[in-house]
Amino acid sequence: MHKTTQSPLTRMLLENPKQYVSGEMISQQLGISRTAVWKQIKKLESIGYEIEAVTKLGYRLLYYPKAIDHLQIEQQLQGHRLGNVIHHYDVVDSTQVIAKQLAEEGATEGTVVLAEQQVKGKGRLGRHWHSPYAKGIWMSVILRPQIPIQLAPQLTLLTAVALCRAMRTYSGLEIGIKWPNDLLYQGKKLSGILLESSAEDQMLKYVIAGIGIDANLSANDYDEQLALKATSLRLLMGKEIDRTELIQLFLTEWELIMEIYERSGFRPIAELWEAHAISLGQKLSLTTPTETFMGTPLRLTDAGSIIVQLEDGTEKEIYSAEMGEVTSNSRL
Amino acid sequence: MHKTTQSPLTRMLLENPKQYVSGEMISQQLGISRTAVWKQIKKLESIGYEIEAVTKLGYRLLYYPKAIDHLQIEQQLQGHRLGNVIHHYDVVDSTQVIAKQLAEEGATEGTVVLAEQQVKGKGRLGRHWHSPYAKGIWMSVILRPQIPIQLAPQLTLLTAVALCRAMRTYSGLEIGIKWPNDLLYQGKKLSGILLESSAEDQMLKYVIAGIGIDANLSANDYDEQLALKATSLRLLMGKEIDRTELIQLFLTEWELIMEIYERSGFRPIAELWEAHAISLGQKLSLTTPTETFMGTPLRLTDAGSIIVQLEDGTEKEIYSAEMGEVTSNSRL
Repeated sequence: MHKTTQSPLTRMLLENPKQYVSGEMISQQLGISRTAVWKQIKKLESIGYEIEAVTKLGYRLLYYPKAIDHLQIEQQLQGHRLGNVIHHYDVVDSTQVIAKQLAEEGATEGTVVLAEQQVKGKGRLGRHWHSPYAKGIWMSVILRPQIPIQLAPQLTLLTAVALCRAMRTYSGLEIGIKWPNDLLYQGKKLSGILLESSAEDQMLKYVIAGIGIDANLSANDYDEQLALKATSLRLLMGKEIDRTELIQLFLTEWELIMEIYERSGFRPIAELWEAHAISLGQKLSLTTPTETFMGTPLRLTDAGSIIVQLEDGTEKEIYSAEMGEVTSNSRL
Repeated sequence: MHKTTQSPLTRMLLENPKQYVSGEMISQQLGISRTAVWKQIKKLESIGYEIEAVTKLGYRLLYYPKAIDHLQIEQQLQGHRLGNVIHHYDVVDSTQVIAKQLAEEGATEGTVVLAEQQVKGKGRLGRHWHSPYAKGIWMSVILRPQIPIQLAPQLTLLTAVALCRAMRTYSGLEIGIKWPNDLLYQGKKLSGILLESSAEDQMLKYVIAGIGIDANLSANDYDEQLALKATSLRLLMGKEIDRTELIQLFLTEWELIMEIYERSGFRPIAELWEAHAISLGQKLSLTTPTETFMGTPLRLTDAGSIIVQLEDGTEKEIYSAEMGEVTSNSRL
């Protein structure tokens, strides 16, 4: 659960919003050394507080995180398919690992695992997913789709469509999907999706959908390298993101898109996907598990793979690839 | 590991093959009661011995199991892709569960888990797989195919082809494949295959192939119900099956078929499958996760699904179904 206990220092900072509180004053009022004050400031920063320190002026609270209200989400989504059971953790290794255990133990579809921080957050292809405390939406959702394993990639695309639409609605920004399932704004990544599937013969048994959203990360949360390719909704919108509201919006949209999928098949989903895609019609490098080559992604297939036009004009079906930098912006 | 300790009773029975040894004599020589003799006989039967008991004549040893020599298999398959690491257990819940744990911990492709007995053997669709002590081949193999999740069903069919060919070679019997992956002889099941796949986004992470072969089961190992639809190689061939040899034969054939698949794609595998299939061209009932209907399976698709002709003449693609009884034997 989210830490809600307020220390005396937190109270002093909160009571003086936007004002500098001198280290000397804190030191005297709390009866602790200046070094102890500094240590407590560092501790607050490690759990998501942003505090400016200016010599001679003191400390000023710029931002403090509000907890995700998972009880509100559960309540609002009662009777819904997704989100009426939420496990909200403070710090975990990975929400994916916890959700997988719950799924193996028989947890129902729509069970959500949320964490304020992930120490070993899982990204695609074994990469680490940077998940600082109280800043983002780090969650895994258990799905139990009654579909054959061949159609699992459709779920990845469906999830990207739902998340993209929810984030567009929330932010008003023209966020786009980079195949297969990254969400970008002006070339910088805002969100990633990782679907882990478990199947028995031809049928899916369960799918764990991992969702990472850089909601309230500040510039300081990105190192130099990461800052070049990632950003947060808060940085883009210039205001704090209500994580509770965004999660609820996404789960509702996702359920709606799933219903369309179940009623009308993948075609309408593919059309939505293509309408939100920023990776079509642009020449770029593609790295598959076996090779790297230049190509222009043209369209989705019904199997969730992508048709790419090679430099010699021929077309090739790609099941899985990393897309590199766009080298030509001309839409076909 | 297989139990190799011989009790005095076992020795007495083994020293008098095909002959009756009276309970009285055993009782005297071992200095135990007739009831204690009977209990020891029951114990031997529980670990695969078959002992005939005839009033006044005594006990006669009809059959005793020989252990699988996994060291021989490991040695013969050194440098091969499959079978050079074998974990041989005595009694386990399920070889699938153990293999899955090993795969999660990073075990290499081709690692084999064998057990003399499974208490909770896993069949398809959550069914129990009857796995009596020392009588069958109950094994799970870890595969790490570098293929997209869409192609996972091809692996199921590939495995069935390899197992069918190995069992035909060993037995000389015209064993056939019932879609997707049961092996039958004259309508009775000899073997089943269960593939459990784990994927991340579009790519398979690992596959656990579970193989059950009714090698040396006797008539007594089948209850009335099971006897109607299952049989063993030993019952069909009238002689004991060398499990060590059959496992080695299968692993070698499987590796060969995998190499064909990697070199030439699924087409040659599909052709082999169709040549071994007994479920094509016959009208039967099909039960999918959502409905049951009559149809005639016609051919495999490249995705590993099957095209079925419905009663109104139209064709339908089926990803997953149970096939029922054949109602018409006329091949198309």
